[in-house]
Amino acid sequence: MPTPSPGCALTLRAEAPADAASTRRLAAAVGDAGGVLTALDVVETGTDRIVVDLTCDAVDSGHIQVIAEAVAALDGVGVRTVGDATFLMHTGGKLEVVPRVELRHRDDLSRAYTPGVARVCRAIATDPDEARRLTVKRNTVAVVTDGSAVLGLGNLGPAAALPVMEGKAALFKRFADVDAWPVCLDTQDTDEIVRAVELIAPVYGGVNLEDIAAPRCFEIERRLREKLDIPVFHDDQHGTAVVVLAALTNALRVVGKKLPDTTIVVSGVGAAGTAIIRLLAAEAAGDIVACDRAGVIHRDRAGLDDSRRRLAEHTNAGNRSGNVADALRGADVFIGVSAPDILNGEDVAAMADDAIVFALANPDPEVDPVRARRHATVVATGRSDHPNQINNVLAFPGIFRGLLDADAREISDAMLIAAARAIADAVAAGDLHAGHIVPSVFDPDVAPAVAAAVRDASRTRT
Amino acid sequence: MPTPSPGCALTLRAEAPADAASTRRLAAAVGDAGGVLTALDVVETGTDRIVVDLTCDAVDSGHIQVIAEAVAALDGVGVRTVGDATFLMHTGGKLEVVPRVELRHRDDLSRAYTPGVARVCRAIATDPDEARRLTVKRNTVAVVTDGSAVLGLGNLGPAAALPVMEGKAALFKRFADVDAWPVCLDTQDTDEIVRAVELIAPVYGGVNLEDIAAPRCFEIERRLREKLDIPVFHDDQHGTAVVVLAALTNALRVVGKKLPDTTIVVSGVGAAGTAIIRLLAAEAAGDIVACDRAGVIHRDRAGLDDSRRRLAEHTNAGNRSGNVADALRGADVFIGVSAPDILNGEDVAAMADDAIVFALANPDPEVDPVRARRHATVVATGRSDHPNQINNVLAFPGIFRGLLDADAREISDAMLIAAARAIADAVAAGDLHAGHIVPSVFDPDVAPAVAAAVRDASRTRT
Repeated sequence: MPTPSPGCALTLRAEAPADAASTRRLAAAVGDAGGVLTALDVVETGTDRIVVDLTCDAVDSGHIQVIAEAVAALDGVGVRTVGDATFLMHTGGKLEVVPRVELRHRDDLSRAYTPGVARVCRAIATDPDEARRLTVKRNTVAVVTDGSAVLGLGNLGPAAALPVMEGKAALFKRFADVDAWPVCLDTQDTDEIVRAVELIAPVYGGVNLEDIAAPRCFEIERRLREKLDIPVFHDDQHGTAVVVLAALTNALRVVGKKLPDTTIVVSGVGAAGTAIIRLLAAEAAGDIVACDRAGVIHRDRAGLDDSRRRLAEHTNAGNRSGNVADALRGADVFIGVSAPDILNGEDVAAMADDAIVFALANPDPEVDPVRARRHATVVATGRSDHPNQINNVLAFPGIFRGLLDADAREISDAMLIAAARAIADAVAAGDLHAGHIVPSVFDPDVAPAVAAAVRDASRTRT
Repeated sequence: MPTPSPGCALTLRAEAPADAASTRRLAAAVGDAGGVLTALDVVETGTDRIVVDLTCDAVDSGHIQVIAEAVAALDGVGVRTVGDATFLMHTGGKLEVVPRVELRHRDDLSRAYTPGVARVCRAIATDPDEARRLTVKRNTVAVVTDGSAVLGLGNLGPAAALPVMEGKAALFKRFADVDAWPVCLDTQDTDEIVRAVELIAPVYGGVNLEDIAAPRCFEIERRLREKLDIPVFHDDQHGTAVVVLAALTNALRVVGKKLPDTTIVVSGVGAAGTAIIRLLAAEAAGDIVACDRAGVIHRDRAGLDDSRRRLAEHTNAGNRSGNVADALRGADVFIGVSAPDILNGEDVAAMADDAIVFALANPDPEVDPVRARRHATVVATGRSDHPNQINNVLAFPGIFRGLLDADAREISDAMLIAAARAIADAVAAGDLHAGHIVPSVFDPDVAPAVAAAVRDASRTRT
């Protein structure tokens, strides 16, 4: 059975007899029903009745119901309300648009709006670059999706993707004071997506593409980079690649290996896998072997599409074939951005000594991290309930902070590599060990360090 | 010479001798140079030097320079810095995007973002209407422009229009807690504008069109109303029409006339004029005579375009011809949304007794309001430095507050008329007089009253 998660928390208000055993019975009922109690508050005390708020983590909506029924079934206990904390948090949306200027009296209006604003408009009409100083373009990123690959859920469409884009925008503000706005496009036509982003671009200083299915996402990114004079970044590709490179840098430090000497097996050649391979290659990684569902990608494999043919030409120097387990024998590093449970402990045991395993499929990794840890020295996942969480939040806020501060018109591999180094270096040498290869997402020094690295890389470009 | 305006204010930091006459000399220099001093602060006092901040209103950027030079020319005085308060206020943009949820620790992230957000996405995928409850769509309006008719400045393009759209969004939040976001489209092609707004619509609960040139704006609005299931409102048309109807309602109360008995001359048949005429007709106003630059629009006039032909058919019952001054003879009401200085005092004197004159061309009205007041009983303008300012801020925030609260899918004339009545009724009977026919834009009761009226009108529709 899946474990309860804080992503699915409920708050239940129960009425119970005012006796010494009541709170203990309520807590036990939650636990017996499989809930993880995180808070208990007696909110009212009467002569013979008390009212208690119970907050606990559950597995899913059905489990919330099971827990509520278990509490209600207790002798003398009534359940008043059951609230789903996640839905409660989302009610009304997760963002608001707030004026940065005071509008107290008529003079304020005259400056922020007509007639004063006219002089600002004319200044921008005369010199369009002034928009980067005098408008929200200075600090604003469009978070663009077509809803075609929402999290691991698939093609849910633009409306259902909005909560993710709002969450992303909230993280941008929380971690790097970047103003980000969701753009959920009601089309999945590549030409229309490219044109729509072009049309809305005057308001933004950067574009973050999100949850757009491969291979469409590659073409959209390429065409937008050609057309726009603001940086275009596909987080599912480059954000993931940056954090993987950072984590791998530190994992190699832990085991004392060098990137150019390692054999790396990458499972999954969608948006993330392709970008990871590209960035590793740019950093002169040793042999990279890419695998998809059909096994190792090599030059003699039939039916390769454009993207895979390019991979076959630039990876797998030994032109090996076979499945992912075959590829893994003797390899130093496994990076999975593919599907749950494709490897077992023996596959990991067949890797080289001091193996590094990044099993990033979400929510269920390519290999059980507990089993992997028996054979590999460093194991990382995408999950927050295991050590070494590979989380894009470490990268994208600081990267865009740096791009906006540098007034960058485009984004380069040099900037991405600089960002990865900054994330890796945010773990002090003394704190670095197999269970701590990436900083906490709440480490306040990470985003500023990433921003500074990107800014410097932007300025040293020739 | 135009008068100084708070829309063009400067703050000047000067160093002067520490003697009793210094501040008086500085203030006099500002005044002699034509500036209107609004603040003077001694910010540093030394043994023989003082530092003084002078804030004053000026006419334009050139005048700011003149004032600074006049101060610098004073004996023993040096000017350290000259700041333009309007540009300072715009630096970095006027909006920010702020999370409505706390992101303090890992559990918050799990709920606002992955993995918890997945359940919210699925709920919307199952029932798309849930987006109106669980996302920013609940409270968010797109402020859409193509930059083709920015204020009175003309076709400045999307980037130069952004400061106006940001200002508009700031007013939405300030006056009605509506989250509004600027959408400045880099095209002036009608089909592309319509399609772009359709594509971005999933994020928004309403669309406010702004500063789009006529006649393109009419077609864009019509087509978007057909295609979208959220209300589409062109503020330059309907916002203006609502406030004009509100002001006219109260002006007629002041002079004791009834709308169906009045003859109304409307000068200007662009976005605002056309919408005003439509709303007055819906309220069964008496005879309406529309005029453009070529004079009165009547059925026998040659070369009428579609929009003017429709006007000729539905207005000017007596099929009068001539120029605007001819039309004005004996008329009860003049409403100008056209060009500066097209009428003189005698034209107003030729109107019926207890004439009403709304000269709304900005910044310079159709007739000098001081002269108009000699002959008309009620005079209104678009300016904040005269009584009776006709300002759309009275309408659009409350209208969208009401639309969003009612979860309205479209907007009707009944809602606009209800909004106008609410604005008119916000001036208490005891306070109503010829110099006070509209409430202050800072009257906190206006937007809630307008919102309630729109909400009710929305619910009583059949």
